[in-house]
Amino acid sequence: MATISFARGVPAPECLPVEALADCARGALERDGRTILSYGPSPGYAPLRELLAEQHGVEPARILLTNGSLQGLVLLAQLTAVGRRVLVEQPTYDRPLKILRELGAEIVPLPCDDDGLDPDALERELEAGDPPAFLYLIPTFQNPSGRTLSLERRRRVVELARKHDLLVLEDDPYGLVRFEGEPLPSLFELSGRETAYSSSFSKTISPGLRVGWFVLPTELAAQLEAAATSTYITPVLLGQATVHEFLSRGLFEPNLERVRELLRVRRDAMLTALARELPDAQPTRPAGGYFTWLELHGVDAGELLPRAEEAGVTFVKGADFGGGPESLRLAYSFVSPDEIAAGVGRLAAALPVAA
Amino acid sequence: MATISFARGVPAPECLPVEALADCARGALERDGRTILSYGPSPGYAPLRELLAEQHGVEPARILLTNGSLQGLVLLAQLTAVGRRVLVEQPTYDRPLKILRELGAEIVPLPCDDDGLDPDALERELEAGDPPAFLYLIPTFQNPSGRTLSLERRRRVVELARKHDLLVLEDDPYGLVRFEGEPLPSLFELSGRETAYSSSFSKTISPGLRVGWFVLPTELAAQLEAAATSTYITPVLLGQATVHEFLSRGLFEPNLERVRELLRVRRDAMLTALARELPDAQPTRPAGGYFTWLELHGVDAGELLPRAEEAGVTFVKGADFGGGPESLRLAYSFVSPDEIAAGVGRLAAALPVAA
Repeated sequence: MATISFARGVPAPECLPVEALADCARGALERDGRTILSYGPSPGYAPLRELLAEQHGVEPARILLTNGSLQGLVLLAQLTAVGRRVLVEQPTYDRPLKILRELGAEIVPLPCDDDGLDPDALERELEAGDPPAFLYLIPTFQNPSGRTLSLERRRRVVELARKHDLLVLEDDPYGLVRFEGEPLPSLFELSGRETAYSSSFSKTISPGLRVGWFVLPTELAAQLEAAATSTYITPVLLGQATVHEFLSRGLFEPNLERVRELLRVRRDAMLTALARELPDAQPTRPAGGYFTWLELHGVDAGELLPRAEEAGVTFVKGADFGGGPESLRLAYSFVSPDEIAAGVGRLAAALPVAA
Repeated sequence: MATISFARGVPAPECLPVEALADCARGALERDGRTILSYGPSPGYAPLRELLAEQHGVEPARILLTNGSLQGLVLLAQLTAVGRRVLVEQPTYDRPLKILRELGAEIVPLPCDDDGLDPDALERELEAGDPPAFLYLIPTFQNPSGRTLSLERRRRVVELARKHDLLVLEDDPYGLVRFEGEPLPSLFELSGRETAYSSSFSKTISPGLRVGWFVLPTELAAQLEAAATSTYITPVLLGQATVHEFLSRGLFEPNLERVRELLRVRRDAMLTALARELPDAQPTRPAGGYFTWLELHGVDAGELLPRAEEAGVTFVKGADFGGGPESLRLAYSFVSPDEIAAGVGRLAAALPVAA
C-alpha cells in the first residue's frame, strides 16, 4: 500500500507545464543565450526583473530575483535579524522559523484566528520591548493554516507598520492560486508600495525552476543585492529566462487557470472527505492555496502521526509550525482527488475510537 | 574608446556552446521534466550527482551540487568557520576572503611562491595556536596568481593535513582548463579521496548555469545538505540537468578542447605583449586557467588603476586578493587576442615614465 501524502505542500506532477517549459528553455537560450549563460547581475535576469517591476509599479532596482524565495528570506534574515526580535504568525511556515532560530533571532509568535493575524496583538508587541527586525507574514492562503487576513486587518497592519516604522515582509506565494472569490489587495498595495513583498513562480509555473522574487525598499534592495553577490555571484539565469519566456509567450494565465482548477477540485475533495469522515474537525476552508488546518479535539497530533503512517497516510503536525499539540496541516495539492478521499478515510481509521 | 577589461575573470562569449545548450535544456526537460520541474533533493539532480560520484570514485552521498560553487563555500564557512582560524594562500580569490571576514573568521594568509603554497609555513601554523576550521586553497592555475602547486608540495600538504587532522578544501575550477603539459594529481586523489574538493562547470561549459559541486567527507556532506535544505530547499535543477544532458551527449570533451585552445591563444597573446611592453614585469606563466600575476617594481597598483582606466584598460589590484601593493592580476580569459595586445600597450603607457 503506497502512502498517501498530505505532508507534501508541493504541486501535483500534472500541474507542471513540462512541454511548454521545454520549448521556453530552448527559446530563451536561442534568443538570449550569451547573456543567460554568462555571469550576470546578482539581482537576476534583467528582462524578468523589468517585467515584475512593471507589474508591481516600482523601479527595477527594487526587484531582487533569487534561487527560490527562501534564499531571499535567508539573505534578509542574515542582514537584519541576528539577535533581534522577529514577529511571525502563529502558526507559520516552518522553514523561516528554523532559519530565524539558527541565526539567533528571538521569534515572537502572534495569535491568529480565522481572519488571520490579530492586529491588537501586533500593536501590543510593537508598544512593548525593542523594535523588531521585521514582521513576517503570509496573509493569503497561509502556510500552514490556509487562512487569509481580512481586508480590515490588512489595513490595520499597514497602519501599525507605518506608525511604528516596522518592516513588513508579506510572503505571497499562494495569492494567485485563488480558485474562488475576489482577490484582496496585498499589504504592499495598501501601503502605497512601501512594505516588502515576496513571491515565487513555484506554485504558478514550477518549483524546480527556483524563481522567487522580492520587492524591497530601495536601500534594503541594494543591501540584499550585495549579500547575494557575496553568496552566489549570480542566481541561475536559465530558470529565470525560461520563466520570462513563458510569460512573454502568454502562457502564464492559461496555465494558472488550469492549476487553479486542479487545486479547486482537490480542495473540494478534501473538505468533502473531512466532513464525512471527521465531522467535528472544523477544518479551515481556504479559497486558494495548498492547505487546510484542523484541530483534533483531545488527540495529540504527534501521537497520531506514527499510527496514521502505519495506516498509510501522512501529514505534518501543527507543532512543527508553532501550532498547538492537537493541530495538524493537511496539504491537498499533491495527491489526486481519489487519493484524498482514501487518505482521509485512513486518517479517520487511525484516530482513537473515543475521539 | 571601449575599455579593455583584464579585470573580468570570466569566459569570452565565444567560449559558450549556446546552440548545444539550448538543445540540451530542451532535451533534458523532455526526458525528465517532471523531476526537474519539481522540488527535488537538496544535494541536487541525482543523475549528475551519480555521474560525478563515479568520476571521483566516491559514493553519491559525498557529492553536493550547489548553485555555483561559491554557494557551497558559503554553506561550509557558515557551518565551520565562525570565530575560527581559516588558512588561505596569499594572495587568494577575493570572494572567500570577504565571506570569511563577514562571518568573523580569522584569516591566516600563507606565503606562496612560483610552486604555490609554502608547506613549511603551513606546518608552522598547524603547530601554533588553535586548530583551524580548514585550509582553503586553489592548487591549480590559482586565482589570482595563475600558479600551480608542485607535486612534491601537494604530497606535503596532504601529509600535513593527515597528521594534523586538518580539513583541506581544494577548490579546482580551472584544473581541466589546461592547455599545455601533463595534469598533476589533485590533493583529493593524493589523499586517497579523503580531503574535500570543489569544482564547477563555469569554466568548462557555462557560468550562467551556476553548477558547482563539492566532494566532502560523508558526515560533512550530510551537514551541508541540511544547511542547503534550510537555505534554498532544492538547487536549480534545470541548470544541473542541462549540464547532465551535455555530458551524456558526449559534448563535454570536444567543447573543453575548443575552450582550451581559445584560452591558450589568449595566454600567449598576453605573455607576448607583456614581454614586449613590460619586459621587467616577470608575469607568472600559467599552463591553464584565466590569470597571470605581475609585480610592478616601484609602482603602486592602486595608484596605477585610475590612470590605466583613463587610458582605456582595467585590471584588479593585487591588494584585493591579499597581495602586495605593487602586484596586480590580469585576466586574459574574456578579451580577444587583439584586445589583449592593445590593452597591454595601454597599460604600459599608463605607467610612470621612470618605472
